[in-house]
Amino acid sequence: MFYVDNRLQFPVRVERPNPSFARALQQAIGGVEGEIRVAMQYMFQAFGARGDPKFRDLLINTAAEELGHIEMLATAVALNLENAPLSLQEEVSQDQIGGGVLNGVDMRHILSTGLAALPSDANGVPFDASHVYASGNLAADMHANVTAEATGRVLAVRLYNMTDDPGMREMLSFLIARDTMHQNQWMAAIEEMGGLQAAMPIPNSFPQEEENQEFNYSFLGFQADGSEPVQGRWSQGQSIDGKGEFDSRHMEPQGEEPALGRARPDSGAQVEQT
Amino acid sequence: MFYVDNRLQFPVRVERPNPSFARALQQAIGGVEGEIRVAMQYMFQAFGARGDPKFRDLLINTAAEELGHIEMLATAVALNLENAPLSLQEEVSQDQIGGGVLNGVDMRHILSTGLAALPSDANGVPFDASHVYASGNLAADMHANVTAEATGRVLAVRLYNMTDDPGMREMLSFLIARDTMHQNQWMAAIEEMGGLQAAMPIPNSFPQEEENQEFNYSFLGFQADGSEPVQGRWSQGQSIDGKGEFDSRHMEPQGEEPALGRARPDSGAQVEQT
Amino acid sequence: MFYVDNRLQFPVRVERPNPSFARALQQAIGGVEGEIRVAMQYMFQAFGARGDPKFRDLLINTAAEELGHIEMLATAVALNLENAPLSLQEEVSQDQIGGGVLNGVDMRHILSTGLAALPSDANGVPFDASHVYASGNLAADMHANVTAEATGRVLAVRLYNMTDDPGMREMLSFLIARDTMHQNQWMAAIEEMGGLQAAMPIPNSFPQEEENQEFNYSFLGFQADGSEPVQGRWSQGQSIDGKGEFDSRHMEPQGEEPALGRARPDSGAQVEQT
Amino acid sequence: MFYVDNRLQFPVRVERPNPSFARALQQAIGGVEGEIRVAMQYMFQAFGARGDPKFRDLLINTAAEELGHIEMLATAVALNLENAPLSLQEEVSQDQIGGGVLNGVDMRHILSTGLAALPSDANGVPFDASHVYASGNLAADMHANVTAEATGRVLAVRLYNMTDDPGMREMLSFLIARDTMHQNQWMAAIEEMGGLQAAMPIPNSFPQEEENQEFNYSFLGFQADGSEPVQGRWSQGQSIDGKGEFDSRHMEPQGEEPALGRARPDSGAQVEQT
Amino acid sequence: MFYVDNRLQFPVRVERPNPSFARALQQAIGGVEGEIRVAMQYMFQAFGARGDPKFRDLLINTAAEELGHIEMLATAVALNLENAPLSLQEEVSQDQIGGGVLNGVDMRHILSTGLAALPSDANGVPFDASHVYASGNLAADMHANVTAEATGRVLAVRLYNMTDDPGMREMLSFLIARDTMHQNQWMAAIEEMGGLQAAMPIPNSFPQEEENQEFNYSFLGFQADGSEPVQGRWSQGQSIDGKGEFDSRHMEPQGEEPALGRARPDSGAQVEQT
Amino acid sequence: MFYVDNRLQFPVRVERPNPSFARALQQAIGGVEGEIRVAMQYMFQAFGARGDPKFRDLLINTAAEELGHIEMLATAVALNLENAPLSLQEEVSQDQIGGGVLNGVDMRHILSTGLAALPSDANGVPFDASHVYASGNLAADMHANVTAEATGRVLAVRLYNMTDDPGMREMLSFLIARDTMHQNQWMAAIEEMGGLQAAMPIPNSFPQEEENQEFNYSFLGFQADGSEPVQGRWSQGQSIDGKGEFDSRHMEPQGEEPALGRARPDSGAQVEQT
Repeated sequence: MFYVDNRLQFPVRVERPNPSFARALQQAIGGVEGEIRVAMQYMFQAFGARGDPKFRDLLINTAAEELGHIEMLATAVALNLENAPLSLQEEVSQDQIGGGVLNGVDMRHILSTGLAALPSDANGVPFDASHVYASGNLAADMHANVTAEATGRVLAVRLYNMTDDPGMREMLSFLIARDTMHQNQWMAAIEEMGGLQAAMPIPNSFPQEEENQEFNYSFLGFQADGSEPVQGRWSQGQSIDGKGEFDSRHMEPQGEEPALGRARPDSGAQVEQT
Repeated sequence: MFYVDNRLQFPVRVERPNPSFARALQQAIGGVEGEIRVAMQYMFQAFGARGDPKFRDLLINTAAEELGHIEMLATAVALNLENAPLSLQEEVSQDQIGGGVLNGVDMRHILSTGLAALPSDANGVPFDASHVYASGNLAADMHANVTAEATGRVLAVRLYNMTDDPGMREMLSFLIARDTMHQNQWMAAIEEMGGLQAAMPIPNSFPQEEENQEFNYSFLGFQADGSEPVQGRWSQGQSIDGKGEFDSRHMEPQGEEPALGRARPDSGAQVEQT
Repeated sequence: MFYVDNRLQFPVRVERPNPSFARALQQAIGGVEGEIRVAMQYMFQAFGARGDPKFRDLLINTAAEELGHIEMLATAVALNLENAPLSLQEEVSQDQIGGGVLNGVDMRHILSTGLAALPSDANGVPFDASHVYASGNLAADMHANVTAEATGRVLAVRLYNMTDDPGMREMLSFLIARDTMHQNQWMAAIEEMGGLQAAMPIPNSFPQEEENQEFNYSFLGFQADGSEPVQGRWSQGQSIDGKGEFDSRHMEPQGEEPALGRARPDSGAQVEQT
Repeated sequence: MFYVDNRLQFPVRVERPNPSFARALQQAIGGVEGEIRVAMQYMFQAFGARGDPKFRDLLINTAAEELGHIEMLATAVALNLENAPLSLQEEVSQDQIGGGVLNGVDMRHILSTGLAALPSDANGVPFDASHVYASGNLAADMHANVTAEATGRVLAVRLYNMTDDPGMREMLSFLIARDTMHQNQWMAAIEEMGGLQAAMPIPNSFPQEEENQEFNYSFLGFQADGSEPVQGRWSQGQSIDGKGEFDSRHMEPQGEEPALGRARPDSGAQVEQT
Repeated sequence: MFYVDNRLQFPVRVERPNPSFARALQQAIGGVEGEIRVAMQYMFQAFGARGDPKFRDLLINTAAEELGHIEMLATAVALNLENAPLSLQEEVSQDQIGGGVLNGVDMRHILSTGLAALPSDANGVPFDASHVYASGNLAADMHANVTAEATGRVLAVRLYNMTDDPGMREMLSFLIARDTMHQNQWMAAIEEMGGLQAAMPIPNSFPQEEENQEFNYSFLGFQADGSEPVQGRWSQGQSIDGKGEFDSRHMEPQGEEPALGRARPDSGAQVEQT
Repeated sequence: MFYVDNRLQFPVRVERPNPSFARALQQAIGGVEGEIRVAMQYMFQAFGARGDPKFRDLLINTAAEELGHIEMLATAVALNLENAPLSLQEEVSQDQIGGGVLNGVDMRHILSTGLAALPSDANGVPFDASHVYASGNLAADMHANVTAEATGRVLAVRLYNMTDDPGMREMLSFLIARDTMHQNQWMAAIEEMGGLQAAMPIPNSFPQEEENQEFNYSFLGFQADGSEPVQGRWSQGQSIDGKGEFDSRHMEPQGEEPALGRARPDSGAQVEQT
């Protein structure tokens, strides 16, 4: 279960409120790279975690942390909206820092929330929970978490580059640091489970001799001219999981033209199809 | 640009058509772990790839491969629907292999497609392209791809365990093998870019001294009772990126209670808030 | 069944067309606070109404009214788009009334509709019918309707404050009045069913002695420091439904740590989880 | 504006309530082939219609008709749910007509609506208004309408084949007839605008000499082996719009490999990309 | 910020695991009546609360409570899936308690989560955050909260009626009690703000003399035959807000037929429209 | 299966990069009128095609073509973003060509993709595959395809009118030409199946004598005043399918007021409804 402290996890200050930046921050709240996603993802991974309970513990603590990040960012959005125009006649001079360049405000900040954050991305698209990856396989989940923290840090860096407000940069500097830790933390969890080689191919519970042995370590090229595929680490040497040797080849069809036959008479097709 | 060969990439045979399994296969077509997702993801990563063109080449070839996987699975769905009931009065004996247990058919296979595949998941939810992760950062993208192939192989294994149709198992054995390769392939691409340590923290282009130095390698615990967080590889030793030393601590609020002030009079709030 | 009159329910005039305001008006058409939502909500509540038919009658009449409001607003959008720029080279001077401040036009007004309304919100997100609340419980539905009309009136007021076009203000003054009536009307329907006390707790058909008697009138606090929760009308005095006495307390866990056990071997988890 | 008559447009009778069929009927309410879609589509086309007002008139009348079809189908859903099981222990014998085969009930009919219709499809996916096609081009819209009525009639026929309830078949026989009329009606509207040849290519307002003259009447093949494309009416003879002559050819790349250059240093890419 | 305790807020026991009931419970997690919704709704209302901070305090504490309810329900889902079939050949006898009647399992419980909860509803539709109502107007928000708790209690009652598992009923009895309290609690918050009359019409900050005075307390009928609208508390007596007197009338069009004029030549319409 | 050629199907040049136009181009990638839609639609129609295999062949070749169009447009987006501002402080002078008028950039082009295309529309709404129409009925599908190409060409023309960049106009001139061909091509496919009269009413496999004979060729008017419906080609003469004679009439209710009866006691309704 969860508890709350009314204070923020880290200070949130805005020196020069900017409604365009409020819009940009929405991506870090409700975007696929954002904090609602990781909070819910770590929560659902924890709720479904099977095996050693330390992973449940690890996940649910970081879920609690991310809930606090949503709060920080929502506060930052509200503070950036402090002087947002409420009418189409308000001072155009407010546009001086680039609203016209960077797409102005999120109109729903005015129309729908009364100058506060939305659980949506920078284009106003609401977060949807299909982005909560919790597969029941801890190694797959840890990769999903590294991905979330990698794209999350890319986003935070872009936000940092977009603003020169000292308060906002201080907050983002904290969030960037946490993304650094979390990228490392989830990779460390894979080490705790035995490391990349032991974990791969994911799931490692499937008897690998039952997978097709001709195509499991071969990089396939699909150039229409039949030329050899591009070479690299993926086409030669031992595979990353240590269980095979990479090679490469141009792929040819192994199957035939599919034939579904004619349509059944009462299936709603045209007569000509039946 | 893309070309087509009318033959299938790999043979698709169904010995005992099963409309419930057709439904399950939909997850591998239009689910977040499925083939539409990876096909589009690799495509958009390729279309936006900047830097060494070999990564574009790598990505677009595998995109072409995944397009062929959609075709294989869609064919498998249609073949599994061959004897699906078109009326509520058809033989209940068709239920003998567990339709009642595993949720029967996808009704839209009858109502909307005339016994063919949908670009939707096993619950009939259409694929939506917000799952196409293409961040403009190749290392983040490669992690997203490993995630997609890891959850994809988990799914393929579950489908393999769900059926005993020899044709379906042969096809899934091929797809599982390809997921093995692709997990390895995308990790190999990270090695080609210098390896995990060089790549992390992602993005590696941000001057790391600008991130908060107190919180970038510390595992934070959020237990309400103030106890120390769970220990593991994530709380001690050198960080995975080799750029810090893990430690851990119980987190305390660093900020204050947020205060947004009163509502502006013309912002649609209640009088009591203004 | 429904009929149509080609005339509008109320006059719609635009003196100074403004494509930014057209965008804002979209929120009142396809937003969650908008008219498509209430039209469909009242319709589906009517279609599923059980018990005294007067409520079906009440609901379907107001549904018909709201259909006419969609028409009015769609007309207002089209009239506001009259001079919208069709090319990136058109007169920037058109921007004089704040397009840059308030986010310019909805590009799809140009690209997708040929200068007419969309069934989407101010950010271009299409209306989705999951917002149609029709629970089969009339009291719950009436509260949903009050909510819809309360947020609807908040939105209409914000739109009114955003524009100074006399025609638009006249139309909005009508819509605001209707929202006043509808808020009152749905509360009146609860009175018609016996009033708030009789209706609560919703559903009133559940034998209240079967609900947990320790926690049904207690305001619970979840402050991490264990402090008492914030006091107010919710923590003391008779409950609003007249069936209990409010108190308050700090909540402690009543359950144990959940333990799901280990993963099943063929469930696609990692070996370490099984 | 819209009016209502409390009576149904056509009688709705259910002799043998069947909750599985209730689920199937949902596709005709909230599916992409369903009635909410056409009602809203014709409404928004009418609201944005420019040019001869007779088309607005035509569209809004049929919109009113379709609103009545939603009502009929919602009533049919509720009547089919009359004996639906409310607990997991209720008589399994209710399953005698194939619930197990055809996917049982929509659980939300029990959990969310109290045995009434949802604005969702047969898989419980809510209708979303992105399916409302209203392009501002009347000829394009008429084709969209023919498509809607063609897929709508295909769906109604499949529902008709799925049930043997006389009441349901009578209702569907009416809806199938209306789809026949509406397919004809929208094609007739194209004739009223001058016919297919005059209307095409849509939009006919674009000076056709500005389109690429080499590729505007040529069927292109993309077989990887370079073979000629499949022949048919589309590859020879006068074009359907009467403005060109069909031919066919194998397509070759006309462009070069795209090169986006290196990533900008502050764009969040990896160092290796910049 | 948020903290966590590894123990559950209330005990979760399942005596007879039932994968169909697991599916039903999903509605209480990811449905529009569910716990993700209220947790996020109260959070975002708190994050944007302006005016007296006690409301922020009230909201964020209940948000923390609801986070714990998500955890309880997710645990209940996993426990109900304990014996779920992983293959289409597993014992059909597992179907004895009605899987066939009530729609069997959510296939994604097997394919996507490895026997754990999803952030989706009973039909597998993911939660989407457009359902998080946080309007910036506290009275409107409180009504939204009453609605959420009313539909939430209706759902919990239906789940209670659906099962006879003592553990599940004990858990639901607690959740039903909390919904009772929360309905009362949010109505109490309106009293704290001065009561229903003072709060209405929402927002009470709009000068009511600017709304149309002819239509703000009149129940309008839209019967096509011009008959008087249905009478009730909504058509006579003092209005609920105490600021007007109800009356009723048949509505007539106040406006004219809308005329958008002809299409602009370069707007992509047909020539006939321009 | 699919192959790839690294070169583009047609040259893509941008002389004056314009991030606003990049946003507009998104509609042609991920909008409902866009290329992802047609690529996937033709693919799924091909994968489910029953009857003469030439239609599968026709469809899959054009699917391959459209995949190449996605690539062209994604490249065009990236090239238009070349000088997009990465910070809110960058030169406002970049706004000279109308960013303020036409809604500036898609912020996610900066925040989420690093200056590359998204699989979303011009408002940032991700493509969702419910727009992939593949009905199992080839005639219905061909109409869906004509619709897609008609709205696609309308969109391409609007984009052409929006820009004066010669490179962009050259590319759009090619895409407009292809839409001309494809409109003709899908109509030609209907001719190949026997022509419009033979195909209609769709599906032509339903015995037309089983549809309601009173309402299958009658245009129905729903004017509240009972007046005759608007006359046109749809109200007189032979029907387009040649199988009936058009007439018209004012519609009257054929059914009664629906009566669902009272609510079941354990269905979660209010006591008053049961």
